[in-house]
Amino acid sequence: MRRLRDIGESGLIARIERRLARATRSPRVRLGIGDDAALLRSRADEDWVTSSDALVEDVHFRFANQAATTIGRRALAVNLSDLAAMGATPIACTLSLAAPPELPLQLADGLVAGFVEAGIRWRCPLVGGNVTAARETSLHVSVFGGVAAGQSLRRGAVRKGDRIGVTGTLGSKALERARVERNGGRIRRVPEPRLRAGRALLATPGHGGCIDVSDGLLRDLEALLGSSGLGAEIDPAAVPTARGFRSAALKEGLDPDRLALTGGEDYELLFSLRPGGPTCAALSRRMGCRVTEIGRVVSAPGLHGVPEALLGHPGWRHF
Amino acid sequence: MRRLRDIGESGLIARIERRLARATRSPRVRLGIGDDAALLRSRADEDWVTSSDALVEDVHFRFANQAATTIGRRALAVNLSDLAAMGATPIACTLSLAAPPELPLQLADGLVAGFVEAGIRWRCPLVGGNVTAARETSLHVSVFGGVAAGQSLRRGAVRKGDRIGVTGTLGSKALERARVERNGGRIRRVPEPRLRAGRALLATPGHGGCIDVSDGLLRDLEALLGSSGLGAEIDPAAVPTARGFRSAALKEGLDPDRLALTGGEDYELLFSLRPGGPTCAALSRRMGCRVTEIGRVVSAPGLHGVPEALLGHPGWRHF
Repeated sequence: MRRLRDIGESGLIARIERRLARATRSPRVRLGIGDDAALLRSRADEDWVTSSDALVEDVHFRFANQAATTIGRRALAVNLSDLAAMGATPIACTLSLAAPPELPLQLADGLVAGFVEAGIRWRCPLVGGNVTAARETSLHVSVFGGVAAGQSLRRGAVRKGDRIGVTGTLGSKALERARVERNGGRIRRVPEPRLRAGRALLATPGHGGCIDVSDGLLRDLEALLGSSGLGAEIDPAAVPTARGFRSAALKEGLDPDRLALTGGEDYELLFSLRPGGPTCAALSRRMGCRVTEIGRVVSAPGLHGVPEALLGHPGWRHF
Repeated sequence: MRRLRDIGESGLIARIERRLARATRSPRVRLGIGDDAALLRSRADEDWVTSSDALVEDVHFRFANQAATTIGRRALAVNLSDLAAMGATPIACTLSLAAPPELPLQLADGLVAGFVEAGIRWRCPLVGGNVTAARETSLHVSVFGGVAAGQSLRRGAVRKGDRIGVTGTLGSKALERARVERNGGRIRRVPEPRLRAGRALLATPGHGGCIDVSDGLLRDLEALLGSSGLGAEIDPAAVPTARGFRSAALKEGLDPDRLALTGGEDYELLFSLRPGGPTCAALSRRMGCRVTEIGRVVSAPGLHGVPEALLGHPGWRHF
């Protein structure tokens, strides 16, 4: 079996460049991979939006239960979800890839292939980065997007009386992970970044704050409320889940409410809307996905209406 | 002793935010750390320049022989060097910080302090990023800069007959590292990114290609020549070194030519100039640093004039 050390740093970069040859065509990319830096064209009426996130082996993924291509795709998807939560459109991305010299070349190729394909799919071409040795494999990604100057979704735009909405369904990713950790098999679902939904929400009069649900609904709701001093009244029964989710969770002996309210990695958008704005049905048409109202913003700090046992749940903690 | 696990991910982020409070004032930063993404103002007549590079524990640094603040500063410096090699001006940066939960808090604080201070010094404020657990400590950095639209230094602009120049002196960083690895002590030198020199070079009529010397002069010269099919005639005796460098190297039993021609981490600019352009003295005044001519671009591929023993030297290989 060939390993990374057999081709060296320059060999890996050459393989990435070959794979990219057909993938970096974009009117926004003036110069892609291969120089000291990449060059991107700006527009006068646009702010640049940038975010960074990392996937680390044995912290965020394991090769044993996920295809390398799935991991590569996921690394870009979770970053694009941050652009979606700002209402931004992707422009380009960079990848800082660390891996042990003994990593099988097939896995390294899979990571790169998944990442590059995701860049094509979501129109966010890979334009730069670096590769380095490390004890474990990790993908550190930066994404760049654009949004109309002075406009963007923000967490801080939450107001008292706002309705709280969420896209899609929650809990299925956490259930899949728990099931695979317990019974074996493979994690196959890669979150679909809600790029279209984020842009549509930004264009909706009366939109409030927005965040993506990466660490679990309750924890991200706390982050959305942030330092506003406000709280939220939530109806747990209204939290949307996929068809068959509750029975599948119970079959595994897991609490469906805990999965839906505290399970991470859903990458749905959690947002607030001023009272009197569009209905969920109207929003759903605009945003191109299911939209559900799950509560409202109140003046009393903290989360209300949520079972005591689920509060203080650590969500997705790294240290 | 307090460790990262004692404060958790959110505790570390809060410490970074407190340190940043006074550090992100910039007319180009509309929104810094604390939301799903950062927002940067664009200018119509400007291209965005972006680059990513990483420092990994036991690959690029060791806590045993470098202060954590030095490592943090270095992480930004090596990235800014890539902007310098494009002739770009820094705008902002992001940091993806990975560290083991048992990392002493003092070291984590030192890394962040060094990085944030470097951002102030080089006017490149930290606007986003993430922290995650990992087996070793690593800093994955992305930098963003600006350059006049359609203008930038490029590696590919090398032409036959060009004079080859280099800023500053070479070899001292490699000597310091070798000395510390051998005799103990601490690595204290952090490269000064040649930002002013890069901008001045870009404004100089008749400038050719440019790259920064991160992996050693010969290896980076090969990268500068890239796929041009051209070669270079080099005068090793002309390669600039610091006063006292040669005797200090010989005292350590090291070959000064090998250190100057193949030692990495100098982060000087290596560039080409069309014949008949400004003299080194004139260039030096424009670029604000020593400039030395070390050879010229020739049609015969490969590096000529260099001792056989130094060719094929691996330079700085990661795998």
